[in-house]
Amino acid sequence: MSLEQRVAQLAAEVTPVDPAAAEAARRRSDGQVKPPGSLGEVERVAARLAAIAGSCPPPVPAAPAVVVAGADHGIHAQGVSPWPQSVTAAMVELFCAGRAAVNAIAATVGAQVAVLDVGVASEPADHPRLRRARVRAGTDDSSAGPAMTREEAARALLAGAGLAEELVGSGVDLLVPGDMGIANTTTSACLVGAFTGSPAAAVTGRGTGIDDDLLARKTAVVAAVLDRHRAVPGGDPLGLLAALGGLEHAALAGVILSGAADGVPVVLDGLASVTAALVAVALCPPAGGYLIAGHRSPEPGATVALDRLGLVPLLDLGLRVGEGTGGLLAVPIVAAAALALADMATLDELARP
Amino acid sequence: MSLEQRVAQLAAEVTPVDPAAAEAARRRSDGQVKPPGSLGEVERVAARLAAIAGSCPPPVPAAPAVVVAGADHGIHAQGVSPWPQSVTAAMVELFCAGRAAVNAIAATVGAQVAVLDVGVASEPADHPRLRRARVRAGTDDSSAGPAMTREEAARALLAGAGLAEELVGSGVDLLVPGDMGIANTTTSACLVGAFTGSPAAAVTGRGTGIDDDLLARKTAVVAAVLDRHRAVPGGDPLGLLAALGGLEHAALAGVILSGAADGVPVVLDGLASVTAALVAVALCPPAGGYLIAGHRSPEPGATVALDRLGLVPLLDLGLRVGEGTGGLLAVPIVAAAALALADMATLDELARP
Repeated sequence: MSLEQRVAQLAAEVTPVDPAAAEAARRRSDGQVKPPGSLGEVERVAARLAAIAGSCPPPVPAAPAVVVAGADHGIHAQGVSPWPQSVTAAMVELFCAGRAAVNAIAATVGAQVAVLDVGVASEPADHPRLRRARVRAGTDDSSAGPAMTREEAARALLAGAGLAEELVGSGVDLLVPGDMGIANTTTSACLVGAFTGSPAAAVTGRGTGIDDDLLARKTAVVAAVLDRHRAVPGGDPLGLLAALGGLEHAALAGVILSGAADGVPVVLDGLASVTAALVAVALCPPAGGYLIAGHRSPEPGATVALDRLGLVPLLDLGLRVGEGTGGLLAVPIVAAAALALADMATLDELARP
Repeated sequence: MSLEQRVAQLAAEVTPVDPAAAEAARRRSDGQVKPPGSLGEVERVAARLAAIAGSCPPPVPAAPAVVVAGADHGIHAQGVSPWPQSVTAAMVELFCAGRAAVNAIAATVGAQVAVLDVGVASEPADHPRLRRARVRAGTDDSSAGPAMTREEAARALLAGAGLAEELVGSGVDLLVPGDMGIANTTTSACLVGAFTGSPAAAVTGRGTGIDDDLLARKTAVVAAVLDRHRAVPGGDPLGLLAALGGLEHAALAGVILSGAADGVPVVLDGLASVTAALVAVALCPPAGGYLIAGHRSPEPGATVALDRLGLVPLLDLGLRVGEGTGGLLAVPIVAAAALALADMATLDELARP
């Protein structure tokens, strides 16, 4: 079976979530000891968890994991980031050493951290926590041609899916996609632009905090990339991903599809994460039912993607560090939603003498 | 010593937080492996924790507790709520039994639940988790006269402070004030109006979800209460609290002052919680430095109070159930802020070969 066929097979394994279980959750919640709807977004999350599990009450997520996929980007050559590419490898090593933001936040919410090198330019040092699935040492410059081949995109996607499947097989019951890749806000902007038909100015942002001049340059680069690949049909998600994408976007799309295929909720993080979700849902529309938006990235492209996905994030904390940080911080809210739906007394019980 | 003198003594024990430690936290954070400021609100929380602890990095909160204070309100006789007063006692019993929203959320974030009856109209059943400090069986109707005496307000405040002090003495290192009291959004609106000089329409909301007619009635009641007690000077916080307040507001102001006196961060919940904070800060301005806003209640009075306190909440999830739920959901963010500041590598380390 070709790599592309394996991607299609994975997508075909995703079954639609169960609207009847969501409705049962809403009814159960309305009968609990509180004014109807007074748990706000928490009740909506509970209904979504029920739909994902196909049962009400759904199980309480107890073993979350973040998959941080790292890769580099040929578009970096266009001067879109103030950071050198070597930072990607250095950060991947820090994730392994447990010394980055994602590690502190994962420890706080009881999540394990899995690190995936799917195409870092300079090879990170070996580490027990590091999964190597190096498809290539970074993508090509998408402003000059396709970022990678379809087969490479498929291979990176399947690497993410394989790691997610192993995690779920070992007991993980909630996945957070995380990313690391210098210049990947540029790549994300290109993908969001292409998948939503939005112009460069609507999807390009300041990333890690660039100034006006660099933002203008970055927007022009995104516009040129979108223009160059306009011939790739929107109905060919793998083609768009290969033309414009990052290897980490492909890997995270695989994490999302695998989680959905295994019936596990996926809590999205920031721009790269919601971009990967756009790719995953384009490949497999039912996968959208397994998504919970954790955090609203300040990047404009993230909101464009979230709107297209029909998702409203739980958090808006101004995080722009990626790594899965914002998704992880939403995990306790997701767990609390499930536990409240399972454990709270009903109004009937309260009325009983 | 009189009860009022004991309140003044408690307020005098609060020392201002340390701006130098906050500045050290900002410098430390800016030197960590991420773009400066890219952890957004999380960095601001870390700086506040450092200011509270007077050290950088501050300790990581590891033993949070919510204090849910329950009481009833004479203003209920004005028909401002669709719920009978008996619900207050029933909910207090549910908090003890571990079957309410606050219990599920507290369990998720690892917080203990302390329940304080400071003036529930119908006495809740005994329970090991229930602390009885019944100042009176609900307040009088503040639209007809003072809700309680100054001594009663002081007694309720000291009951909350005493419970908080015991909790901190037993190892609790973060406090969340929570509330239960049918009609207490009306009482909160009165207090916020009086403490901020805002008109009834700006501070009165739908509480648990009342319709337009009941909202109009409730707003008129709040306006009448504010008018009746206009002679109480704003510089007399205990007098305003006694004239307009709820016993649970008094108790939670005590929790806040005691937490501040003990150098412990206080993570605020919704309307009753931020109203109690207004009272606490009026009694003792330095207590404001110990506050972190957990959740933005949809009640308009909550935003008026938060603006006066200069606080921006971490969450906005549409919760309107009280009990401390929104404060508790913010606790993992607070803990993560401290852990990230303590544990993340520095850019210097990254640059080292």
